[in-house]
Amino acid sequence: MSSFSHLDQEGRARMVDVSEKAVTRRVARASCRVLLDPSTVERLSEMPKGDAVAVARLAGIQAAKRVDELIPLAHTLNLDHVNVEIEPAEGGVEVRSEVVCTARTGAEIEAMLACSNAALALYDMVKAVEKGAVITDLRLEAKSGGRSGDWQRGVT
Amino acid sequence: MSSFSHLDQEGRARMVDVSEKAVTRRVARASCRVLLDPSTVERLSEMPKGDAVAVARLAGIQAAKRVDELIPLAHTLNLDHVNVEIEPAEGGVEVRSEVVCTARTGAEIEAMLACSNAALALYDMVKAVEKGAVITDLRLEAKSGGRSGDWQRGVT
Amino acid sequence: MSSFSHLDQEGRARMVDVSEKAVTRRVARASCRVLLDPSTVERLSEMPKGDAVAVARLAGIQAAKRVDELIPLAHTLNLDHVNVEIEPAEGGVEVRSEVVCTARTGAEIEAMLACSNAALALYDMVKAVEKGAVITDLRLEAKSGGRSGDWQRGVT
Amino acid sequence: MSSFSHLDQEGRARMVDVSEKAVTRRVARASCRVLLDPSTVERLSEMPKGDAVAVARLAGIQAAKRVDELIPLAHTLNLDHVNVEIEPAEGGVEVRSEVVCTARTGAEIEAMLACSNAALALYDMVKAVEKGAVITDLRLEAKSGGRSGDWQRGVT
Amino acid sequence: MSSFSHLDQEGRARMVDVSEKAVTRRVARASCRVLLDPSTVERLSEMPKGDAVAVARLAGIQAAKRVDELIPLAHTLNLDHVNVEIEPAEGGVEVRSEVVCTARTGAEIEAMLACSNAALALYDMVKAVEKGAVITDLRLEAKSGGRSGDWQRGVT
Amino acid sequence: MSSFSHLDQEGRARMVDVSEKAVTRRVARASCRVLLDPSTVERLSEMPKGDAVAVARLAGIQAAKRVDELIPLAHTLNLDHVNVEIEPAEGGVEVRSEVVCTARTGAEIEAMLACSNAALALYDMVKAVEKGAVITDLRLEAKSGGRSGDWQRGVT
Repeated sequence: MSSFSHLDQEGRARMVDVSEKAVTRRVARASCRVLLDPSTVERLSEMPKGDAVAVARLAGIQAAKRVDELIPLAHTLNLDHVNVEIEPAEGGVEVRSEVVCTARTGAEIEAMLACSNAALALYDMVKAVEKGAVITDLRLEAKSGGRSGDWQRGVT
Repeated sequence: MSSFSHLDQEGRARMVDVSEKAVTRRVARASCRVLLDPSTVERLSEMPKGDAVAVARLAGIQAAKRVDELIPLAHTLNLDHVNVEIEPAEGGVEVRSEVVCTARTGAEIEAMLACSNAALALYDMVKAVEKGAVITDLRLEAKSGGRSGDWQRGVT
Repeated sequence: MSSFSHLDQEGRARMVDVSEKAVTRRVARASCRVLLDPSTVERLSEMPKGDAVAVARLAGIQAAKRVDELIPLAHTLNLDHVNVEIEPAEGGVEVRSEVVCTARTGAEIEAMLACSNAALALYDMVKAVEKGAVITDLRLEAKSGGRSGDWQRGVT
Repeated sequence: MSSFSHLDQEGRARMVDVSEKAVTRRVARASCRVLLDPSTVERLSEMPKGDAVAVARLAGIQAAKRVDELIPLAHTLNLDHVNVEIEPAEGGVEVRSEVVCTARTGAEIEAMLACSNAALALYDMVKAVEKGAVITDLRLEAKSGGRSGDWQRGVT
Repeated sequence: MSSFSHLDQEGRARMVDVSEKAVTRRVARASCRVLLDPSTVERLSEMPKGDAVAVARLAGIQAAKRVDELIPLAHTLNLDHVNVEIEPAEGGVEVRSEVVCTARTGAEIEAMLACSNAALALYDMVKAVEKGAVITDLRLEAKSGGRSGDWQRGVT
Repeated sequence: MSSFSHLDQEGRARMVDVSEKAVTRRVARASCRVLLDPSTVERLSEMPKGDAVAVARLAGIQAAKRVDELIPLAHTLNLDHVNVEIEPAEGGVEVRSEVVCTARTGAEIEAMLACSNAALALYDMVKAVEKGAVITDLRLEAKSGGRSGDWQRGVT
């Protein structure tokens, strides 16, 4: 029977023991969207230097490396690869991340946090123009590697 | 004319100069939802010790204190108060945050990050049970204080 | 002849070279006590939500992951498992930790810091009630793994 | 009636609101001891460069600056002054700290953590020689400033 | 007589007490150069997205916010403004920073670290092409504010 | 054809995928100089406790462990060994570092940052005496291990 991660039988939090799990290559992908007014998206893409998107992408990459400090019970992972892409999409912009590691546990949270932090850094830049912007649909898209095997959104 | 925060005329990123702004009391509130299967919500609330929700709430509070490290161009704020509440809501659970500071700039990002990180910490605990859980509707609810005055979602 | 860790022949600090040591599974356990007035212990255990103890336990787990930042010459370890338990004991409460890693060096300091930080977080919550509370008997209980072999308190 | 810091009426953790408290100069002093074999103390003081004690003192000072990351519900304080002294004492060495800040809340935890982290850094250096060394009597010695006024150990 | 910062009469390190100093607006500017082959500079400026320079500029801004963690005896400052500029110059590129704060102590180290970290981030990107690149002439250009008054390089 | 690290074909920043690279022992050495007035160097070496140099050396060692937080696209490395030496040299003092790791990517940036941060910590201590001190010639001296093989300054 599957159960909550990081909680023991009595519901007490602890960092689960992964020392008996195999070190394997693991990949996780996530995504979210930032809902923005079309005029904000247009202004973002008209910026001559493109720093706004670069800042957000970097914020996502850097956050992925710090999951162990932000998520109390997450294990420390040395990531092999992080990529964050931000592109105009229906209703605003879409943020997509990919994280690869070679470890005893997967990088799902790392991929999720990369997206949410990139989206927040973008919000931080547009908030003077559009304070009400909404970040939505933050979700795991796929993961592979590890004992629980592959998983893909929408595939049962 | 209002414009993007943290970007100069040529679109280059920098931390804006707030040294001429007044130190005032500022409040920001944000919220998001974690969409969960009803059985997951039920299991969460049946946990005898309630640590799952306590962990998520703490993760939100702690993240609010570290905005300056996560959001590249955000100013460092010494927060006076942070609260995070997590409660069952339609479709899963709702996360709400409130942040107070006495500073030259507001705590909107702090309130947003408190919600997103609490939600991610919750996801980290339920992911073995429900990997496809979605975090949604992360948004500022209200802010007060500072030169730009009060703002409330849905109020024009 | 055994000598001080991290100091060279002239007494200068450096991070010792462990690159030739074997990667093995290592376990460390530590403990300490927080001396508290019986009425404080009673009030702690009467708290309806139990968050006080959950906060302290989390503070211990999180600190164990950050030893490399706090102890200047400690190596960075990716921990496989951390557990912290807090229970009423004679004279107050007892804090016990267990840390597991698969690494070139042991997790003794990680186990010690998990206890001291959990105790300090607990003190942070009771200090309005009992400012004079004392943290005592912080010590390694046992360690296993690595070239120097097993060690247990009180066993020669 | 005095009650636990950081817990609301239902026992839920939150960072208490200090925005209405006055900014005043606050001082806190703490101490602890590291029980060591006389031969270890002698070897420490014979080290030609004295780096061992310098490392421990620095570890204490640096930890005081990071209380907000280690103690989940502590406020961020910009410290005006931190000093840590380590001296031979009966049964080993004594660690004493003093912390000064100008803030809405006091630096008691900062002074306590400065001592415990200095002691742990010292333990980290002597552990190859004396794994069973014990850190003990970590306690606040005195605090001044703030609404609750002055407090001194042993003075009722 | 002027003397070393952060060292007491016996040469022991401590964080000096600034609680009696006035809170004033302080500005510091620094610079350094990264010596690069002309072909590397050309390739940098030909990159279509300009992310290389954006990454380096951000690395400088972010490092300025973390001086208290990197420089053991530095005080924590909440910075009002940080800017980093990187431009082609004789022999490679020049990095210039400006930091503003309202505090009891100045931001000289913050301005210096902003430059050195921006330069290192740039080196991190060109190192596959030009491993031998040299960072040079890292220095304070000017500072104003505070009791010691204004200072400018080359002006006696 | 060799190209910039961390930038894709379109010049966008990402953390490169090293998951297919071999885990090998890697060593990097770097150096820099701090130009100081002879009287400042003399005063430094006359300090009775030698803490000034110990602080700078520690600052270098600690910075090497935090490269992943400071250099946005750097991978997290668990270092096996870090040493920093500071000695009087022509025109001031020389800082030399050596870093060893067992990893999929090298520790060149770690060695460079160890030197620059040690130099900045030293500047932080002498700045009251000699504000115009210059840090110069920060450069990689040698690296070994990994697919690109050995490299040594001045050897073609």
